[in-house]
Amino acid sequence: MKYRFSKSLEGFSSSAVREILKLTQGSSIISFAGGLPAEEFFPLDAVSEAFKRVTEGGKSALQYGLTEGYKPLRETLCRRMAAKNMHVTPDEMLLTTGSQQVIDLLTRVYIDEGDVILVERPTYLAALQVFQAKGAKIYSVDSDSDGMILSDLQAKIAKYNPKLIYVIPTFSNPAGRVWSVERRQGVLELCQAAEVLILEDDPYGEIQFHGDETYPTIFSLAGAPTGSGVIYTSTFSKTVAPAFRTGWAIADQEIIRQMARFKQSADLHSSSIDQQTLYHLLEHFDLDAHIELIRANYRERMEYMTGLLEELNWPGLKWEKPKGGMFIWVELPEAIKAEDLLKIAVQEGVAFVPGSTFYAENPKYNTMRLNYTHTNRETTARGMQMLAKAMESYLQNV
Amino acid sequence: MKYRFSKSLEGFSSSAVREILKLTQGSSIISFAGGLPAEEFFPLDAVSEAFKRVTEGGKSALQYGLTEGYKPLRETLCRRMAAKNMHVTPDEMLLTTGSQQVIDLLTRVYIDEGDVILVERPTYLAALQVFQAKGAKIYSVDSDSDGMILSDLQAKIAKYNPKLIYVIPTFSNPAGRVWSVERRQGVLELCQAAEVLILEDDPYGEIQFHGDETYPTIFSLAGAPTGSGVIYTSTFSKTVAPAFRTGWAIADQEIIRQMARFKQSADLHSSSIDQQTLYHLLEHFDLDAHIELIRANYRERMEYMTGLLEELNWPGLKWEKPKGGMFIWVELPEAIKAEDLLKIAVQEGVAFVPGSTFYAENPKYNTMRLNYTHTNRETTARGMQMLAKAMESYLQNV
Repeated sequence: MKYRFSKSLEGFSSSAVREILKLTQGSSIISFAGGLPAEEFFPLDAVSEAFKRVTEGGKSALQYGLTEGYKPLRETLCRRMAAKNMHVTPDEMLLTTGSQQVIDLLTRVYIDEGDVILVERPTYLAALQVFQAKGAKIYSVDSDSDGMILSDLQAKIAKYNPKLIYVIPTFSNPAGRVWSVERRQGVLELCQAAEVLILEDDPYGEIQFHGDETYPTIFSLAGAPTGSGVIYTSTFSKTVAPAFRTGWAIADQEIIRQMARFKQSADLHSSSIDQQTLYHLLEHFDLDAHIELIRANYRERMEYMTGLLEELNWPGLKWEKPKGGMFIWVELPEAIKAEDLLKIAVQEGVAFVPGSTFYAENPKYNTMRLNYTHTNRETTARGMQMLAKAMESYLQNV
Repeated sequence: MKYRFSKSLEGFSSSAVREILKLTQGSSIISFAGGLPAEEFFPLDAVSEAFKRVTEGGKSALQYGLTEGYKPLRETLCRRMAAKNMHVTPDEMLLTTGSQQVIDLLTRVYIDEGDVILVERPTYLAALQVFQAKGAKIYSVDSDSDGMILSDLQAKIAKYNPKLIYVIPTFSNPAGRVWSVERRQGVLELCQAAEVLILEDDPYGEIQFHGDETYPTIFSLAGAPTGSGVIYTSTFSKTVAPAFRTGWAIADQEIIRQMARFKQSADLHSSSIDQQTLYHLLEHFDLDAHIELIRANYRERMEYMTGLLEELNWPGLKWEKPKGGMFIWVELPEAIKAEDLLKIAVQEGVAFVPGSTFYAENPKYNTMRLNYTHTNRETTARGMQMLAKAMESYLQNV
């Protein structure tokens, strides 16, 4: 039988890069490609302990749960959010299957085919895919190391009348940037004035290397969520572990309610065993101390990798040392195409993500994203040597 | 700020019934409304044991997993499927957040606005919602106690040129029906001839009261999945426990691949902790013996509730004793509107689902769905007394 797939599939750009990276999965190739946390820091004992508490609570732990998510976990998360100046009630929060599902659900309730969405330049690949599959028109706003450039944002709001803007202001993916407070405030004001909903994605905010600096979320600058026009999302994937697939959204209750309606028909609810386990983990485990441990170790890994990058001494290489998060964004000399470099690198035994995949339009082909959190010192050193060799071969063949 | 939600929201029928039922959640009201399994039979010790094995495997258990789902669980499930004459490889299977997500993902990859979907009359409410939200046109095919009526299906295929048909052939929700083999075969032939994709939803197939009867799935009748035009879905929610939110789809690899692409942007993957736990559970726990236990207990509960229904001796009451599954479908005298009866019943302290919500069109208002699996003997007896009282009040006020 001939299948008649939906036209939504046309929105999915099939990517040669994805195919190459798929080949590296499960192989012995050293990967700087993914956004994987370091397994050695996963709090496995605390997770075991927390799960034990779940089962000690009796069999009802295994029953269907609420679409909105396990309420005690929402309550705990509200307290954690309040400590970051984001004041919400459990009714203004939705627990999801990772923050990826927040992007998807919001797109489903808010975007129609042909609606315009603004994004950073560059931005998170899997958000672009969600927007494309929905048939949205995506335009990117120029950004520098302080965040989105306000004059360009203002011009693009005027030109395109966007419905939504998607931003990662703290340790962005892929560029590793931190927005200044002024830019955060400026984006908030411009968007509120033009009624552009802001989706603030903050998976990396906790992975902060300089304890003395504070980066207020746009959500916190907007004050109370009702009518604020800001929806904020984060996840436990980077602070506890990804396998739980537990993220959350906070927003105006009207938005949360509509997303919950869609979530109900999308999957009824996310795993409530995982949500209950995380609840007990937060009650009995010092997550903040654990985050300090991750910060220190990831910072060390970042310093080590940027040190190796410096030693490479490639001509025309540009990058900024990240202040947090999981990625180094590297600009190669203009003539170098990172996608071609990747093919050689994979043969050498190392992978990264070519930066071109992170652009909504007019990709910069001479960019690459390196993840420094997943590989230890020894593996990182070997991987960087392979990368150096790949670059040598590349330059010889140009 | 004024929010500009997507027009998909218009597809969501807001239902007075849902609002009433929402009030019963967490209250002391006896509920025959939900489709909840009995908590007392959840295999909590086996789950604890299985989770322990997951953590003993080390920290990598907490890392990101594959979009397609934990491969060892897919392999085990392939063997379980093969025992039911459904022969697939792990690449022809996708693990999801409950079988609800299969309905959603398939709709996303296969249905465009305005496409026609055929369903049973009556059918599963939350499938209708998914189809409506996508803007599909839904028509129901007449059914009797043997399943879909083939002449009506043939006429509707000719009239509407549907892209998809959604069916629950074994212990259907809400009607509790089992299709005859002839109807299964007939639907398969008609749909294959007209290139109508069949979505066979089988959450209740294992909850079978007569061990000597066999109900071949439509998927098994179709043979090898490639080009068969049948996608089959089931779940662990009714056999192990719902909180894991683990379901699966099997189909032609082309369909699975497209669904996996959408799943990746929907939520990356479902909880792999839950999938790993279920894998170890299936390895070390006799799930089939456990299913026998559930069957025996649910059958007893069904017998008890149908016995009480008989004792009620309401004039004009019609129902068929289910051969499996979780629901009794009751037809009241034509003059009685179940939605009005529900309002009184909730005041008395008992809830059910009025049947009208299960129709794609022309609802029958004099129908109701009763769940018998969740309440024990004593609670069922009290609930049925309350229902009798509600009916008395209703008849007095007509």
